[in-house]
Amino acid sequence: MVIQVAVCGPRDCTSEDESNAREVGRLLAERGAVVICGGCTGVMAAVAAGARSAGGTVVGVLSGADRADACPDLSIVIPTGAGEARNAIIVNSGDAVIVIGGSWGTLSELALAMRRGGVPVVQLGGWRVLDRDGRPLTGVEHASTPQEALALTRLWPDRLRPGR
Amino acid sequence: MVIQVAVCGPRDCTSEDESNAREVGRLLAERGAVVICGGCTGVMAAVAAGARSAGGTVVGVLSGADRADACPDLSIVIPTGAGEARNAIIVNSGDAVIVIGGSWGTLSELALAMRRGGVPVVQLGGWRVLDRDGRPLTGVEHASTPQEALALTRLWPDRLRPGR
Amino acid sequence: MVIQVAVCGPRDCTSEDESNAREVGRLLAERGAVVICGGCTGVMAAVAAGARSAGGTVVGVLSGADRADACPDLSIVIPTGAGEARNAIIVNSGDAVIVIGGSWGTLSELALAMRRGGVPVVQLGGWRVLDRDGRPLTGVEHASTPQEALALTRLWPDRLRPGR
Amino acid sequence: MVIQVAVCGPRDCTSEDESNAREVGRLLAERGAVVICGGCTGVMAAVAAGARSAGGTVVGVLSGADRADACPDLSIVIPTGAGEARNAIIVNSGDAVIVIGGSWGTLSELALAMRRGGVPVVQLGGWRVLDRDGRPLTGVEHASTPQEALALTRLWPDRLRPGR
Repeated sequence: MVIQVAVCGPRDCTSEDESNAREVGRLLAERGAVVICGGCTGVMAAVAAGARSAGGTVVGVLSGADRADACPDLSIVIPTGAGEARNAIIVNSGDAVIVIGGSWGTLSELALAMRRGGVPVVQLGGWRVLDRDGRPLTGVEHASTPQEALALTRLWPDRLRPGR
Repeated sequence: MVIQVAVCGPRDCTSEDESNAREVGRLLAERGAVVICGGCTGVMAAVAAGARSAGGTVVGVLSGADRADACPDLSIVIPTGAGEARNAIIVNSGDAVIVIGGSWGTLSELALAMRRGGVPVVQLGGWRVLDRDGRPLTGVEHASTPQEALALTRLWPDRLRPGR
Repeated sequence: MVIQVAVCGPRDCTSEDESNAREVGRLLAERGAVVICGGCTGVMAAVAAGARSAGGTVVGVLSGADRADACPDLSIVIPTGAGEARNAIIVNSGDAVIVIGGSWGTLSELALAMRRGGVPVVQLGGWRVLDRDGRPLTGVEHASTPQEALALTRLWPDRLRPGR
Repeated sequence: MVIQVAVCGPRDCTSEDESNAREVGRLLAERGAVVICGGCTGVMAAVAAGARSAGGTVVGVLSGADRADACPDLSIVIPTGAGEARNAIIVNSGDAVIVIGGSWGTLSELALAMRRGGVPVVQLGGWRVLDRDGRPLTGVEHASTPQEALALTRLWPDRLRPGR
């Protein structure tokens, strides 16, 4: 089975988020992974553009019911019409989940990915969550670069080891 | 944008349904269409097998949350975890909807496709719906063969005309 | 636990459907059952009005996300924002499902109720479904009157016996 | 229209969360508000118990499809079978959202409530969210007691002013 990676992020994002998303998309496509995203603007459009630039496959799982509202660069469009309930579907579709940047919708996807459990969840930029004692929550991996984000998914373990 | 066709049918189907589904999958793949199905057994597994045999792309939109429960021959798996609510997502994802064989779940997909409106809905075998006066409902196209099912979607109009 | 009955039907219905829905709502409320409906116009508004006229409780499970779009006479509004995926939620919420009148959306609810299995499904008017040999499908109970519809749910068995 | 308040929290919660949830439920019922919760254990069961102890109405919107899995003290059960997609439905159903305690599922509901916008979102205990510069996010109201949580929803403004 081909590897699928869910990539989440705000529809209104910073230029750094956009640049990171584009690079994450490109790197995932180079490794042959299918990218699953929300098919809207911002990080979603950028990760799709990056993946397509490297010949990759990108699935957009839309909140709306109209395929015409999807961002460009999607290979396949799933217009769920299910509203924000589609966030759970996106994070459920990845062998890993990469979250880029911060917004309330994006935070819901990070939280749903952690709630799901059993798959790596990697954050690149964005918001931070503290427990009731003010300590960072464990479980989310934090990356500083797109390359590190892919490494922390541990989906391509031999690429992590120098000399291989 | 690539053409997407939703193909629906029972998880427990007749051998004729299975054979039809396999052929519909093959024909759709030959025309370059992406097949969207429910990713389970029966018609769903058969249309996936047919499409893959011709090098096509097949997306399985599962009712369950576990990718491991998907049928083979899927290119991409979307494990929604949304139960039967996923039926609406499948029919919403097609530029046309082809329904093969009959079951209550399949009938719900036929009905949701007609409820959606605006896209061709083609039935190949299966159940019949009559209005309160005992007359067949209009709107659903009825095909006798896989070839006719594709023709009735009107997605490839020039293929309908002999001599081309 | 209080008995819950899902009542489904078209947003554009006949006056006979509307009258039937109102009476079904009234009878359910008299028996102390909570009515679950789609919270829109037509049969949905009529069953809510009938139940409220008898002091009953009615839950409207909306397809849209805005509570303001609900019909009057609802006790509680659940604006799912999940589109037609809410149909599965409605039929899943009843100890029995009563379907009044015919439309594609209504047929999807009838089919999902039968797909669910394990609860009585009663039709009052509306469309008919035939199998591939032209025979009526078994499993759906057909009522001619609101009183008969309630009786066929078998939720109040002692009321079926004359002399009680 | 009756006021509806969504109350979210972990299925495994602290005893303080449980005590707070019970009191929030009781206070909401006293004010005549319908409580919408997830119908599971922990905070969900406690808010239901509190509301019922004061004669209130509580709706449990379950992730599963089986009504038998609901916590006691629910007036009405909506077994969605939609998995975590039901979180969006819960927060969408409140004229205000009160979040008690912390877990990933609970955080997804807090985030979806803020994503929805337009309704007060109040947190009582639980996790904290910081933006990328380490500053607390604005928009969520933080309460220290059940009484303050209700006050911060601003649904009963005259109760906030002494002397009225």
